[in-house]
This record gives sequence, structure tokens and C-alpha cells, in this order.
Amino acid sequence: MMQPDPLDLPVLHTFRRCSPLVHCITNDVVQAFTANILLALGASPAMVIEPDEAEQFAAIADALLINVGTLTALQAQAIRRGIDGALAADTPWVLDPVAVGGLTFRSDFCQQLIKLKPAAIRGNASEIIALVGLSNGGRGVDSTDSASSALPAAQQLAQQTGAIVVVTGEVDYVTDGLLTRTVAGGSILMTRVVGTGCALSAVVAACCALPGDRLENIAAGCGFMKHAGLHAALQSQGLGSFAVGLLDALSLMGESA
Amino acid sequence: MMQPDPLDLPVLHTFRRCSPLVHCITNDVVQAFTANILLALGASPAMVIEPDEAEQFAAIADALLINVGTLTALQAQAIRRGIDGALAADTPWVLDPVAVGGLTFRSDFCQQLIKLKPAAIRGNASEIIALVGLSNGGRGVDSTDSASSALPAAQQLAQQTGAIVVVTGEVDYVTDGLLTRTVAGGSILMTRVVGTGCALSAVVAACCALPGDRLENIAAGCGFMKHAGLHAALQSQGLGSFAVGLLDALSLMGESA
Amino acid sequence: MMQPDPLDLPVLHTFRRCSPLVHCITNDVVQAFTANILLALGASPAMVIEPDEAEQFAAIADALLINVGTLTALQAQAIRRGIDGALAADTPWVLDPVAVGGLTFRSDFCQQLIKLKPAAIRGNASEIIALVGLSNGGRGVDSTDSASSALPAAQQLAQQTGAIVVVTGEVDYVTDGLLTRTVAGGSILMTRVVGTGCALSAVVAACCALPGDRLENIAAGCGFMKHAGLHAALQSQGLGSFAVGLLDALSLMGESA
Repeated sequence: MMQPDPLDLPVLHTFRRCSPLVHCITNDVVQAFTANILLALGASPAMVIEPDEAEQFAAIADALLINVGTLTALQAQAIRRGIDGALAADTPWVLDPVAVGGLTFRSDFCQQLIKLKPAAIRGNASEIIALVGLSNGGRGVDSTDSASSALPAAQQLAQQTGAIVVVTGEVDYVTDGLLTRTVAGGSILMTRVVGTGCALSAVVAACCALPGDRLENIAAGCGFMKHAGLHAALQSQGLGSFAVGLLDALSLMGESA
Repeated sequence: MMQPDPLDLPVLHTFRRCSPLVHCITNDVVQAFTANILLALGASPAMVIEPDEAEQFAAIADALLINVGTLTALQAQAIRRGIDGALAADTPWVLDPVAVGGLTFRSDFCQQLIKLKPAAIRGNASEIIALVGLSNGGRGVDSTDSASSALPAAQQLAQQTGAIVVVTGEVDYVTDGLLTRTVAGGSILMTRVVGTGCALSAVVAACCALPGDRLENIAAGCGFMKHAGLHAALQSQGLGSFAVGLLDALSLMGESA
Repeated sequence: MMQPDPLDLPVLHTFRRCSPLVHCITNDVVQAFTANILLALGASPAMVIEPDEAEQFAAIADALLINVGTLTALQAQAIRRGIDGALAADTPWVLDPVAVGGLTFRSDFCQQLIKLKPAAIRGNASEIIALVGLSNGGRGVDSTDSASSALPAAQQLAQQTGAIVVVTGEVDYVTDGLLTRTVAGGSILMTRVVGTGCALSAVVAACCALPGDRLENIAAGCGFMKHAGLHAALQSQGLGSFAVGLLDALSLMGESA
């Protein structure tokens, strides 16, 4: 495994000072965990899902997260309205294309969404490869490809959409199509707690609201999760205490040397 | 900070003995946490959301909680039917007007709901001020006003609706419009775990089902959460273990001196 | 209390090796906990709920879980389509008839579902008794009957539907109508954490996807939860740490003697 990257303390301090208000339209499974991850890092989550309110709130929020993990036709309406509100107000919005590729409804929907100027897209290798039309995606929510194998697809997707594309795996890749940052660290246990990837997408959305270089800010955000995962893995006695330790580590991150 | 109030053991024992069955129509984010908080205190939660069933079940339950945090048009129908069932059966119902004020759909809906004889209303300062039409509410789910500043609004709302109104913050205020109880204690960490306020509203609903003085019972219920928050903060190593400790403290509350 | 059954290590190893992909259409309250329980045991959860996708995914998955805890008319459509997909692809599907009996909409719906060849049905005593039309069910989600009292109903239901029927309680009963296995162990604390029963149903679904004798596999799966519950109860300091310990115990189960 690659040496873990050091924690980017300046971005962490900026994150906490700005405390981005992140409007999350996300899947049914990870709502509480996503909110608690954002709170642990010092951001402010809000889940607003009625179409009119989604459009209204996306204009107030600092960033909008769209996650299609439990997409329905009704939610698709709210997502479109949320993105309308975000684009009208210059609120950056981020796409998490959960399980795209193998499932038709969400795949067609995500193909439409990526034309709507997302600030960032975060997925696993199978999802990113599927989004650029190179495969049929993974099996359910798990990636069947390695993150590095998806880097060409990620770069192509970034150039095609204008988004920063994040492919997460043992090493995360963050690319704008030209520049690519890698983020190492973390723990394999993160793949065995539901919602770590979805919550990272919310952190990426928060990072899009920060001042400074967006690519660097997002890479720093990926590093926060890797760092917390590594820390939690050392202290945990199984997957329950690992998830608790992840929130502990994020909330105390940077407080001691 | 004010000295924490002592735990109201008689009401705690009554709560556990009665084990109120609380019908919760609440937001997508806090469902599990709300249920676990109620279970930890000895109550029995049930989330029943199909309109016909909501009306049917509200008549069986000991109390009904309505929380508009992720309100949709479909959920609004279930809420109306639930309240119909509650009113017909004299089941007390409680409103948590999450983020009311800034968002139009829920604000209009909550203005209709407060005319339907809620037994109690629990919100933060911004929400209570917004409900009586004195401001445009907070920014998302967080209050931008102090609890004490909302006391006049709370008293007015209580007189207008006949409900006990609870404004939570560093100190909680519980008022029927004439009498006001304050509840001190707790921890700032409670604002950094999603759902503590929403779960308190469920506890308030359970307290409405207890025999005895409703104002005193609700103030005692607020005290249970303050007490558990204080206890958990002393033992936690971050926000993950704080949330775990909160449930631990509630479930063991009153067992040792 | 009966002596706890020993852990069935061969089935545990098979479970982890096969890592069944379990498609869950379940209630709003237990989504994350269900996913994390499956992950802790080494299975792979996926919640896919849009009707077209539900049918498509049920054919890809190794098992399908249907839980009616927060049934709505829209969800009923997704459930029907999911079962269509499962039956067409010979994917075993499992029914958790939460709170059936007292509530009309779900009771009528479950009566239709049990005609669609479920591989297994898991409920508490009141639910199983209600499903065979012998009573009006429990009060909310809690059973008002003992598991042993429901054994005749479980046997009748198994013969009527062809499903393995699991009645959970202080002792679990697993029956195909002729043979019955009992599973002892566990902890009363499991009834005070939301979703332990619902998550067990997901484990039962995963067990239906394993090679070997289905009755034995399901009984083993019930034993995993009993074993973890017993272990967690010994280490917990309240209900919060009990839930964490349950996930810890499942994830480390069988690693040490």
C-alpha cells in the first residue's frame, strides 16, 4: 500500500471556518450517516426533497449533493428542480452516480445529469467507467474494477463535463482531466460500512464551496476521510466500533498534532 | 452556563412503566435514531406512513409525532390523515416544524397544522419565531436565534394554539403561554449529532401520553435528554462515541444514583 | 433460559465465501442498520426501489428481501415488480410481514404476497399468527404472543406457502412445516434496538442463497444473530454500545475460538 498522504490542515481549517451548508438529495440508506459525517467535519447538512423546496433551498445552500442510490421517478423530479436552483444561483452541485451502468433507469438519468455542469462527480471505478459508456458497471454498489484502471475514463469524463472527477478505491484519484492528484491511506474496512462513499461525496460537495483551488480542496477532503479511516481502523474492535471511530476521528481531526 | 436541573425520577419511572407507543411520521434522516432514543427511554416507536394506515394507527397509538423535515406532497397527505385519526381518538399529537420559515411549502403546511390542536410544538428559536410570523426562520435546520429570544413568540404560539410550546437551545423553555419552565444542562455536542432535536420531539410526544401534569411531564422529558447529553459528553471521544453514549445514558438513566 | 446453541461455523464460512448480494426493499427506519448487519457478516446489500429497477435488480441479486414496515402504495408497486423479477430468475425472496394483522393495507397486501412462493417468511409470534388468520396481530411492531405459541401457526403457514417460516423470540423456531429447528441464545436487549428483527430477515434472505440445506442454513443464520446478541450484551454499557457491539461481534464472528 502507498504511504498515506499527510493531512491538509489549512484546508481543514478553512472547511471548519466556512462550515458549508450542504443540501443533500441522497439515498434512503445513508441519510443519517451522511449528515453525521458532515457535522463531524464542521459542515452543516440539510436534506430538502420536495421539488419546489429543493429548487428554493439549492439557491440558499453552499453546495448541492445529488446521489442516485435509491432513485425513484419522484426523486428524479426533485433532483432536476434542485439542480435548476443550483445552476440559477451558481451553487456548485456534485453527482454520486451510485450503481450506474447495470440499472437502466438511473443510467439514463445520470447521462442526462452529467450534461448539467456538475462541479464534481465522485464514484467508484465501475461507476466512472460506466458513465463514459465503456462498460456495464459493477454488480450492485460494489466496484468490480480498480480505481487506477478507471483513471483514463475519469479524465475523459472530466474533459467532457467540466467537472472534477473523483474515483475512489484503495487510492483515490482526483482529476480535472489534465491534472490528477492521488490520495492514499484509508482502510479496507471503509468498504464494509454502508455509506462511506456516499458520505465522501457529500464532503466533496462541501469542498466545492470552499475558497481556493477546487481540485486541491477536493483532494484534501478525500484525505480527511482516508485519514479518519486509517485512524479508526487502528482503534476499532469490529465494524460497529469502526464506524463510531470514523466519526470520532473526523470530529477531533487536527486538534492534536 | 446555568446549573443543570436534577433528573425528574418520578416522571422517568412513570415513562418507563407506561411505555408509550409513539406513532412517528418523521423525516427520512432521523428515523432510526428517533426509534432508538424512544426505545432507550422505554417507549415503543412505530413508523406507519401510508395514509389509510396512518389514520388507523394514530387511533391505536398513545401519541403521534409529526416532523416535517423531509416533507413531500405525499407525506403531507399521510400527516393529515394521521392527525385526523389522532383527533378522532383523542390521541395527543406533537409538531416538530423543522426548518419552517425559509421554505414555502412546509411553512404554509405548518400554518395549517397548528390550527389542528397540537398537544405540543417543539422547535428551535428560529422555527418558533417563524411559526408566529415574526421572521423568516433560520438557515436550514440550524437556529440563528437564541432560545430566550424566542420565549415571547413561544408564549404567543401557546396561547394561539392551545399547545405546550418547547423552544430548545442552550436552555430549553417549556411554556403553556402562562407558566414557563426552564430546563438547563446538556451539551453543545448535541447540536452536532443529527436528530437530537427531532428525537426530543418524539420524547415530548411520549410525555404527552403520560398521566399527570403535561407541562411538568414535558419539562421532565427535556431534562432526560439534557441529562443524557451532559453524561455522554463527559465520556465521549468525539461525535461518534457521543451519539452512542447518549443512547447508553438514556437506557441506563436512573438505575444508579 | 435455554442453553445457547453453538455457532454453526461451516455455514458461517460458506456465508462469507459466497457473500450473497441481497436486494433489500425494506422499511425507512432500518435501511442503514440492515445494510451494516449484512456487511458485518460478509454479505453485500443493495437497496434498489424504483419499480423497473427493482425487477431488473432482483434478477441479478442472489436473494430479495421484502419488508413492509413502512409500506406505501408506491412501494407496493416496487415490491410486486421485484418479486416478478425474482420469480422469473429463480432468485429466492423472503417476506418480513412487519406489524401485519392490525393494519389493513399491509395485511391485505401480505395475504397476496404469501401466494407468490416466498422462500422464507420471518416474523414475530403475533405477525405469524396474524398471517394465518388466527388473530388480529400485535400492537405496532411488538409481539404480544410468545414464539412457542406461534409454532402451530408457523407450521401451518409453511405448509400453506411452501416457505420456511421463522418465528423469532426468546427462542427462534425455524420450520418447513414438518421439521422444526429451535435456536436459543441472544439477549433481551435485541428487542430494544430498532431493526434487529428486520436485519435478521435480511440475513435469512442471504441464507436462502447459500448451497446446502435451506432449513439448516436459516437456522444457522438465526444463530449468528443470537450469538452476536449474547456477546454484545456482555460487553455493552447500555443500548448504544450494545448496537455497536452487535456489529462488532458479527464482523469478528468465528475469527477466534
